[in-house]
Amino acid sequence: MTITSLTGVIPPVCTPLTPDREVDVPSLLRLVDHLVAGGVHGLFVLGSTSEAAYLTDEQRRLVVESVAGHVSGQLPVLAGAIDMTTARVLGHVAAVTAAGADAVVVTAPFYARTHPAEIARHYRVVAGASPVPVVAYDIPVAVHTKLPADVILELAADGVLAALKDSSGDLAAFRRVVTGARAHQGITGFSVLTGSELIVDAALAVGADGTVPGLGNVDPHGYARLDRLCRAGEWAEARTEQERLCALFGMVTVGDPARMGPGSSAIGAFKAALHLRGVIDCPATAEPQVPLSQDEVERVGKYLAAAGLL
Amino acid sequence: MTITSLTGVIPPVCTPLTPDREVDVPSLLRLVDHLVAGGVHGLFVLGSTSEAAYLTDEQRRLVVESVAGHVSGQLPVLAGAIDMTTARVLGHVAAVTAAGADAVVVTAPFYARTHPAEIARHYRVVAGASPVPVVAYDIPVAVHTKLPADVILELAADGVLAALKDSSGDLAAFRRVVTGARAHQGITGFSVLTGSELIVDAALAVGADGTVPGLGNVDPHGYARLDRLCRAGEWAEARTEQERLCALFGMVTVGDPARMGPGSSAIGAFKAALHLRGVIDCPATAEPQVPLSQDEVERVGKYLAAAGLL
Amino acid sequence: MTITSLTGVIPPVCTPLTPDREVDVPSLLRLVDHLVAGGVHGLFVLGSTSEAAYLTDEQRRLVVESVAGHVSGQLPVLAGAIDMTTARVLGHVAAVTAAGADAVVVTAPFYARTHPAEIARHYRVVAGASPVPVVAYDIPVAVHTKLPADVILELAADGVLAALKDSSGDLAAFRRVVTGARAHQGITGFSVLTGSELIVDAALAVGADGTVPGLGNVDPHGYARLDRLCRAGEWAEARTEQERLCALFGMVTVGDPARMGPGSSAIGAFKAALHLRGVIDCPATAEPQVPLSQDEVERVGKYLAAAGLL
Amino acid sequence: MTITSLTGVIPPVCTPLTPDREVDVPSLLRLVDHLVAGGVHGLFVLGSTSEAAYLTDEQRRLVVESVAGHVSGQLPVLAGAIDMTTARVLGHVAAVTAAGADAVVVTAPFYARTHPAEIARHYRVVAGASPVPVVAYDIPVAVHTKLPADVILELAADGVLAALKDSSGDLAAFRRVVTGARAHQGITGFSVLTGSELIVDAALAVGADGTVPGLGNVDPHGYARLDRLCRAGEWAEARTEQERLCALFGMVTVGDPARMGPGSSAIGAFKAALHLRGVIDCPATAEPQVPLSQDEVERVGKYLAAAGLL
Repeated sequence: MTITSLTGVIPPVCTPLTPDREVDVPSLLRLVDHLVAGGVHGLFVLGSTSEAAYLTDEQRRLVVESVAGHVSGQLPVLAGAIDMTTARVLGHVAAVTAAGADAVVVTAPFYARTHPAEIARHYRVVAGASPVPVVAYDIPVAVHTKLPADVILELAADGVLAALKDSSGDLAAFRRVVTGARAHQGITGFSVLTGSELIVDAALAVGADGTVPGLGNVDPHGYARLDRLCRAGEWAEARTEQERLCALFGMVTVGDPARMGPGSSAIGAFKAALHLRGVIDCPATAEPQVPLSQDEVERVGKYLAAAGLL
Repeated sequence: MTITSLTGVIPPVCTPLTPDREVDVPSLLRLVDHLVAGGVHGLFVLGSTSEAAYLTDEQRRLVVESVAGHVSGQLPVLAGAIDMTTARVLGHVAAVTAAGADAVVVTAPFYARTHPAEIARHYRVVAGASPVPVVAYDIPVAVHTKLPADVILELAADGVLAALKDSSGDLAAFRRVVTGARAHQGITGFSVLTGSELIVDAALAVGADGTVPGLGNVDPHGYARLDRLCRAGEWAEARTEQERLCALFGMVTVGDPARMGPGSSAIGAFKAALHLRGVIDCPATAEPQVPLSQDEVERVGKYLAAAGLL
Repeated sequence: MTITSLTGVIPPVCTPLTPDREVDVPSLLRLVDHLVAGGVHGLFVLGSTSEAAYLTDEQRRLVVESVAGHVSGQLPVLAGAIDMTTARVLGHVAAVTAAGADAVVVTAPFYARTHPAEIARHYRVVAGASPVPVVAYDIPVAVHTKLPADVILELAADGVLAALKDSSGDLAAFRRVVTGARAHQGITGFSVLTGSELIVDAALAVGADGTVPGLGNVDPHGYARLDRLCRAGEWAEARTEQERLCALFGMVTVGDPARMGPGSSAIGAFKAALHLRGVIDCPATAEPQVPLSQDEVERVGKYLAAAGLL
Repeated sequence: MTITSLTGVIPPVCTPLTPDREVDVPSLLRLVDHLVAGGVHGLFVLGSTSEAAYLTDEQRRLVVESVAGHVSGQLPVLAGAIDMTTARVLGHVAAVTAAGADAVVVTAPFYARTHPAEIARHYRVVAGASPVPVVAYDIPVAVHTKLPADVILELAADGVLAALKDSSGDLAAFRRVVTGARAHQGITGFSVLTGSELIVDAALAVGADGTVPGLGNVDPHGYARLDRLCRAGEWAEARTEQERLCALFGMVTVGDPARMGPGSSAIGAFKAALHLRGVIDCPATAEPQVPLSQDEVERVGKYLAAAGLL
């Protein structure tokens, strides 16, 4: 894979589990086939939507091996190397690249209190030891810092970073990276990807190279269509498609907030939808997430039906 | 070890590193001897001050094996099992107990967005699988949630938790756990430990069972003396000793905030002090922390001198 | 004014001050003329960019009277009624409407810790007593809560709110209000305005009715042009114009962060730019904001020159 | 009043309201008599517990005039001058001192994004214009910044501040101000007061001069007794009394969090308790706070009964 591959729709692939919380490889491969059939352009395994934070090292390795082996180079496989600090991330980088990942996706340090200088140092050390391109993953809701645009651009100019995956929800900051990268003579082939599945049309309009939509697990055809419409400049049709997907995204709120957090609800809904659509065998999520109730699952079904997916 | 052992001074043991960032076992064992000679009552390895977030699984195992083997039951060894979620924590629990830990110390889930119900579920699953007692580690600055007092008390009453290590800095909430545990008929043998090294006298006065002071690496004698004075009800002398230690703690601010975060400065200062005192061979901290400058190290020396430690 | 007037460019009008920090009415009226000549569609006085939080009640009244009297109905004048809680806001509503405001702009309660039920109650009481339409002002950076989309839509459906001015920077949440208002049969004539001056093209593309750009003080012609291009569906040209304005916006960072906060820097830069462009007599900002240095003002001038405004 | 008066128990006085939300002066004066009879050493009107954020300027003035006139110099009356920024605060300073306040209590700027340099500037300007001593009010939960200890000490050394009222809950930071003020040759007569009503014994043990307990409205005798015990060095008895007060404080949680915020619950409970104890005529709180239900009020009564106050 070259870094220029990082365009189009690259969904963060859910990790189907068995009822006893082991990786369900057959379901995982059916999910991959479902995504490829949907027209996606790459796969991002071991992201936040993949429950990477919940998987053991063995499970993570199994996911990458299974997916990379299955697609065998047809489309790029990015793999998260999600951990607290540099040495631990380097362990994951070694593991996932040995297992076949074409690029690694790395957040700012977390748990540790961090500083822009330490974030930059982190990426420099990781990239120095990585055999594949490094994608910065900006996800403040998880790591509690925002990657500063100037740090991203400096690292891009120095060849440390091949891409940014922005899940911050801050389109103005995202645009600063897009225009900064375009204006900077020293930056070439840097991809800027949005993880904000509800404003893909807007992100592509401001210059994003691609999108990493969690909801793309449930409706990959929809995100592929949205991507095509935006690239064709069919903005009105794109907006209609995006709004259909926004309505579908409402499923993430089915979980009762008195009983579970927003993550349990969102991941639970995506997996319930994949189960209802017949893609995966079991909607289980990893511990300590709280499972959806039967009523909540039925509400997921209504979202699917309203979007024409059941 | 029984849970009733968790009283007195239980410092979070720094992890000395070599210049190439491997665990320096001889220095680590000298540090342990220094702490034991200082009169501490237990050891907490793989805590935040130990740079657990920065150590690989192999390094973590080596730390526990080395320390547990060295002290061989003379005093209890608690080990952090610091990771994002349940399954990953369980891996660390298995590893550190195999390596000799007498208890495990576990935070709320992090990276994942969490909910009190998920926190409780996390501790229940971890305790269900742990061969040793589980200590809850409340450290909002790292995990970005505060352990609710009612969750702690419910888990203590159900025998899930053996102790709380509170690094939240919130003495009123700490007191609620102390008095709640005392008032609850179903809670026996539950230890409440403070990680707030600047208000140990106050925490013991409100009923804490013990203290986990990062600065105890630098001056274990001081914290042992403080503990004795408080237990003897010598509050005025205790306050004088505590204030001496507070002044010494000023070393954590030597690092230039324009160049590094507060963690790099604090851990860097503790290690510089241990190096200056001749306890460890090298003051290196793990990546991506920024090292102290020579000037900053000299300022650490002045703090030591002012406290009568050089 | 009817609520359907709330479309197009409605800049938050800066409040020029004399060197002794009194409202400089002649400069204020020249600024209004500059904005009207630039093609704006309405004026928002006493917003955050207007330093409403810094002005006394007398100064606030003078601003509204001066501006409303000057424009005398040519275009709508919205006025902030920025205060902590309901009774205090009602005092400002009475004052600014007596002074000629056509609508009032009201944030969630602040200082007080608040709850969605209390936010809704706040708007219901304010609207019940206001002689003019009420615009909700969503500005989490100032009030530290985000207005929930479902609360906004409920209040819009009940006729409590005439519009939303969204300065949260969260385009996905903004879109939820836009599409929710459109889909709701009970909501008519509700305007959704964005305060995110760096993504006006994107906000209009997702369905915003108008924009409230602080930078519009400096370059009203640019924002009027951008608005026209977007309404004409000239998205490529709109993007070019927006990117020019984004570059100009860089002026808000001229202030040294070691010496002042981001507000001092941003408001200081806007006023310095208006002074350099000859619109206002004095660039002073209100206490306790820190003034820009001469060097920093010169950097503002370079931003103006680069954007073709000097 | 001289600044040396600021010791002992200085409760933030609740503001009784009539059913139509006007200040109920007879109830207010009965409350003052209740506090004086309870043995308090000063009164703090227009603080957070006084609902200052909810009162109009006229209501604020009425409160100060009524209370200052009633006590006529028997004990010092501190008054909050709670507003967003400097010029607005100065207006309140003029009003409350004209109405008889002996000192003013001022927070960091809020709503505006602020910086330590701006906070210092704010206090310098306010103190320069205030005819009475200025007390810094550290209340991060309301203003969303913490007053840095070094800023406080610098301002104390320069004679800008007469005292600190710390409602941050951070006893370690509080201690830094206490010991810093004691160690600094240039600081004399500076009072350090805690607003943390659950750890008064601890705060006095570390060197606080006094306490500002919201719960002191409900049980002034308890806080006066606690203050005496601490000053006498009767720490065990003090702890028992403090724990009784902590249990009583549980009343602040009676309000259903699904229906109201923590402020509505806490202020509502204090006023319900004062009503049940026969001190005030009506337990109403200001808009937009949500009133307690009848059931919730009954639970307040149970807390009173358990503490021996009914």
